[in-house]
Amino acid sequence: MTLPRIVIERCHYLAECTEEPGAITRPFASDAMTRAHALVRDWMGEAGMTVSRDNIGNLRGRYEGAADSTLLLGSHLDSVRNAGKYDGPLGVIVAIAAVQRLHDAGRHLPFGIEVLAFADEEGLRYGSTYLGSRALAGSFDQRDLERVDAAGIRMADAIRAFGGDPQRVADDRWQSDDVLGYCEVHIEQGPVLEARGLSVGVVSAIAGQSRFEIELTGVAGHAGTVPMDRRRDALAGAAELVLMVEAAAATQEGLVATVGRLEVEPGVANVIPGRATVSLDARHADDHLRNEFAEAMLARTREIARRRKLSLEIRPVSENSAVHCSPRLVDLLTQAVTDSRVQPMQLTSGAGHDAVPMSTLTDVGMLFVRCKGGVSHNPAESVTTEDVAVALDVLSRFLELLAKT
Amino acid sequence: MTLPRIVIERCHYLAECTEEPGAITRPFASDAMTRAHALVRDWMGEAGMTVSRDNIGNLRGRYEGAADSTLLLGSHLDSVRNAGKYDGPLGVIVAIAAVQRLHDAGRHLPFGIEVLAFADEEGLRYGSTYLGSRALAGSFDQRDLERVDAAGIRMADAIRAFGGDPQRVADDRWQSDDVLGYCEVHIEQGPVLEARGLSVGVVSAIAGQSRFEIELTGVAGHAGTVPMDRRRDALAGAAELVLMVEAAAATQEGLVATVGRLEVEPGVANVIPGRATVSLDARHADDHLRNEFAEAMLARTREIARRRKLSLEIRPVSENSAVHCSPRLVDLLTQAVTDSRVQPMQLTSGAGHDAVPMSTLTDVGMLFVRCKGGVSHNPAESVTTEDVAVALDVLSRFLELLAKT
Repeated sequence: MTLPRIVIERCHYLAECTEEPGAITRPFASDAMTRAHALVRDWMGEAGMTVSRDNIGNLRGRYEGAADSTLLLGSHLDSVRNAGKYDGPLGVIVAIAAVQRLHDAGRHLPFGIEVLAFADEEGLRYGSTYLGSRALAGSFDQRDLERVDAAGIRMADAIRAFGGDPQRVADDRWQSDDVLGYCEVHIEQGPVLEARGLSVGVVSAIAGQSRFEIELTGVAGHAGTVPMDRRRDALAGAAELVLMVEAAAATQEGLVATVGRLEVEPGVANVIPGRATVSLDARHADDHLRNEFAEAMLARTREIARRRKLSLEIRPVSENSAVHCSPRLVDLLTQAVTDSRVQPMQLTSGAGHDAVPMSTLTDVGMLFVRCKGGVSHNPAESVTTEDVAVALDVLSRFLELLAKT
Repeated sequence: MTLPRIVIERCHYLAECTEEPGAITRPFASDAMTRAHALVRDWMGEAGMTVSRDNIGNLRGRYEGAADSTLLLGSHLDSVRNAGKYDGPLGVIVAIAAVQRLHDAGRHLPFGIEVLAFADEEGLRYGSTYLGSRALAGSFDQRDLERVDAAGIRMADAIRAFGGDPQRVADDRWQSDDVLGYCEVHIEQGPVLEARGLSVGVVSAIAGQSRFEIELTGVAGHAGTVPMDRRRDALAGAAELVLMVEAAAATQEGLVATVGRLEVEPGVANVIPGRATVSLDARHADDHLRNEFAEAMLARTREIARRRKLSLEIRPVSENSAVHCSPRLVDLLTQAVTDSRVQPMQLTSGAGHDAVPMSTLTDVGMLFVRCKGGVSHNPAESVTTEDVAVALDVLSRFLELLAKT
């Protein structure tokens, strides 16, 4: 069996490690994760790696090189609820397969390779994302240990039950200075590669994100008795906002903006809506441009509210700056793509990845793999063996190119 | 104490008959309704009426006249959850007060007067409106007896517990042919009289109503990874619908149209909405015009769905024809308003009333009383003693004018 085929099979095996029969749900520090670790440990060992795990629960496989310097590869092993097979595991398993190739050829590179299988990226269990990569990058927040899951279990106790020492998560921080970078293979989770007919693409940046909650309050009233010209309909104001955001985002290359949540009160057919609460999520690789867009949207929302005599409350929810991939790693990955006879394409990631916290530790690079319909966080997630073969080929070439620099 | 003041006080007493301490909630056939009946029975008796109740639970007070013919007056005693004091009770109590005036003067008219205190108009307990007036008008649906309330109690059992015989609701039908009409006093539940500075107004018609549920289905997707030009956002389609309905209704005199409900799936900030379900409620006194409007809205919704590549399901929920008040009763009420030195105004009711089912039995007329801010179905419902005085004066004059015809 070919290595790309083995990668796909291994993703299927990992999918069997789940807390919910018939679905893929693999939370942080769960029994399902213990079973996943047993598999990944074996695969790392077969590829000639020495395996360890840290306090937060990351699995680390080290393949020695000629010198002390290290290149980090990896992705995460946890999943969302009712997930697909590839978001996370694919990156871990492709990395292991690339090392396997070296091992099978009896080769070692001038640098060591460490494959990181992160313990938590999705935040399903504790609502706090990137637990694994934050621990490794040294940005783990000790206060998160007090978080409690749906079953009432504190994170500190979950870490202990999983075999780690919650008081020593700080020790998980990468200790050596001599790290060459972090490179992550991941499904695209979007439709761009599919639309362009490309197997893989090189990520140039991970978009920054602004998130707001906007509440419009008018006057609820009887749907039959209040004339149209005397209404202060909160939903009509929210509808203007939705269309304004959609239209404005479409005029800005690379920008995405979404109203994903809209709640109406009282929300019954025969009452004019008195209140509408909406979410606004805007993302772009250019922080300045994103901030300008968000400011413009909020200013125009104020105009809508004023014109419609609605009261308005804008609550900032979160803001994350864009993370730019290292031009050096982007260039090497792009060269590797070209060498694999795929038309090179650079694209922005609109979703967050372990590369975000890792960027505080070292240079980061990412390779996206086409996924069917751009679908992710869904059992329908699908990648082809051919595209996995290309991704593996690109990653191997990338290692060789890096070895020559 | 003046009669108008007594009317207001009695509305306050009835407000104490509630199933929820601190709020007014008086469902069909409840303990709260039993207490309300005890009060209304006394008030009817004081006004010289003989009191009976029927199987559905309407209280009926009869004040004899010189001949067998009867004029029906009344409104309903039940309420919505967390209601105001006047929607329903005001009409019953003003009618009793008008009879009290005759009784105090020792006068009887050429016709008898029967004050009807209906058992259910709002449908709070069984989701089936007009139980009281439908029983009296002969349009009670026997199948409603099988309905079950939130506590699991069948309507038939509730009627029995309240002292009626569920198998004999058909006997509640008004038996005599010699009925002169039905006249109902009610708060406006809208802001028109207040805006015109008028105490009362004469209802010319009760608007017909079309109600639909419209479901738009696009494709849910990651808010960060799907470019704007590749989205099929169901909420954006629904937002177009909301604004289209609002704008179109505003151009049509007397028409009101409302999207009161809008539900988004999955409804989270970082997912492009895959589905949006909205309600559409359109009302007008002219059935033809209302139907034309509804058809136009649905046709344009189809265009929106086609343009945005959304799939569309339109489910008709209900349709009620307009009810026109009897020109004879409208003329007499208008004359009575003029005689009370109020500028006469005719208006359409956008809300349904007991007059709707009663219109299948006899001619109907309605007098609206100004309510503060047009607010109803709300503890803030408010009417002034002065306006009640005008309404009582108009109703008394109406009785005298009818006696002369």
